[in-house]
Amino acid sequence: MRIAVTGASGFIGRAVLTELARRGISAVASSRSGIGFPLGSAHKSVVLDIHENAADAYERLGRPETVIHLAWSGLPHYHSLHHFETELPVQYRFLKSLIVSGTQNLIVAGTCFEYGLQSGPLSEDLPTQPANAYGFAKDALRRELEFLKTSQPFALTWARLFYLYGEGQASTSLLAQLRQAVARGEKTFNMSGGEQLRDYLAVEEAARLLVSLALARCDAGIVNVCSGRPISVRRLVEGWIRDNGWAIDLNLGYYPYPDYEPMAFWGDRRKLDSILEGQ
Amino acid sequence: MRIAVTGASGFIGRAVLTELARRGISAVASSRSGIGFPLGSAHKSVVLDIHENAADAYERLGRPETVIHLAWSGLPHYHSLHHFETELPVQYRFLKSLIVSGTQNLIVAGTCFEYGLQSGPLSEDLPTQPANAYGFAKDALRRELEFLKTSQPFALTWARLFYLYGEGQASTSLLAQLRQAVARGEKTFNMSGGEQLRDYLAVEEAARLLVSLALARCDAGIVNVCSGRPISVRRLVEGWIRDNGWAIDLNLGYYPYPDYEPMAFWGDRRKLDSILEGQ
Repeated sequence: MRIAVTGASGFIGRAVLTELARRGISAVASSRSGIGFPLGSAHKSVVLDIHENAADAYERLGRPETVIHLAWSGLPHYHSLHHFETELPVQYRFLKSLIVSGTQNLIVAGTCFEYGLQSGPLSEDLPTQPANAYGFAKDALRRELEFLKTSQPFALTWARLFYLYGEGQASTSLLAQLRQAVARGEKTFNMSGGEQLRDYLAVEEAARLLVSLALARCDAGIVNVCSGRPISVRRLVEGWIRDNGWAIDLNLGYYPYPDYEPMAFWGDRRKLDSILEGQ
Repeated sequence: MRIAVTGASGFIGRAVLTELARRGISAVASSRSGIGFPLGSAHKSVVLDIHENAADAYERLGRPETVIHLAWSGLPHYHSLHHFETELPVQYRFLKSLIVSGTQNLIVAGTCFEYGLQSGPLSEDLPTQPANAYGFAKDALRRELEFLKTSQPFALTWARLFYLYGEGQASTSLLAQLRQAVARGEKTFNMSGGEQLRDYLAVEEAARLLVSLALARCDAGIVNVCSGRPISVRRLVEGWIRDNGWAIDLNLGYYPYPDYEPMAFWGDRRKLDSILEGQ
């Protein structure tokens, strides 16, 4: 099976390439500005910006049967109109061109922000109610691909990602900020109240799940990619500090809770588990 | 107040121009290929295709404070990908250019298809679940305009239209088809079972409501423009036959019910009534 990975130089993309190599699978690794790290012999690097509207994108990606599509620009500015003014039409055009050219199996990164301000365990059959432009644009892209499927059949797995953490994450992420504070020798770490319940997954585990979904070729539709277990942000951060042997105190309540997220939500993992069991 | 009407040569557009003239209000009447009927002295006709991306659209529309936006291409092919592949980005770009240029009050035609396969009385606060590409694209345009409002304030009234009927409707509509059958001297009229419950409004009444909403300048968000009363399609057609003194029998059950609509839905009119009462 010929596999391509877009957004391959990103936080999740690098973990997916590592996971593919671990399984002995070679892929074409595509990114906007080249892969800035050693790929090893397993993969082939390709420079491709989906905003270019290249007519030969499918060829340059090695005529892939399966595409794990992670590319998305404009993050972490969740409220920017960029996500639907620019990114949505570009993303749809790019993915449609791959499908029309011959790609049969598409795994696309979705986001828990598609659910919007809904609380508790979130299952894939809930109506989406995105509350920011990023969540809206992802949700709209998924619906557009579902409409496209009715005239141009292909297998679609919409991997709705919850919160991830790990090495090499964007400097705005919680773990990266904590790491920077420790490196600066700070005694306290300013954060929110920390009581909010979230669903966190190590990026290596998310990559393992994404690759399993890609190999399943099961046209699964929406699948939550999550731990299925709520954890308070406070406990999560305390765990990172303990596991790393860091010495830093938490200044809880320094920042307000974000207004675009509910206090408690996590993924319902039953659909994901049933797909993985079937393998 | 300077008013422009887009899609002015269409079924609803003509009725809106008539209603504006009846109230002594002059408007700029915009259409893709010119208005093919006498406008009288009240209005000014402008040829403008929103797909052209004209930089001076706002100027050509007479620098309108209020725009009643009815233009939308690709109907009645509800399942065509055209609605989001082409129409959605074109519509958003056009409306944003008006807002950025100075338009402060936007009345946009929405559709009951945004609700999707939901039954019973439908109120504006229901989550939308569009089941065809047309309904999806209209729903997405509304959400995009709502996001735009957060950075570029304007008054938005999303007039969610239910079923309309009247003179000059598209030849594919039920009333036009019945009229053609009568004109051909046919003895029977083939139709569905006719038991489905719908919400029908005469186009003159819809135009009256649209103009009232435009003049209210109330930033109402979504408003159902509907009768609020369910009626079976059979009774509706029987009423047309009786009112016109036609002699034709109904061949009920000849066509199946459409698969993209529920058997019974109609609009909740309370929000519309409360706005009109406040005037």
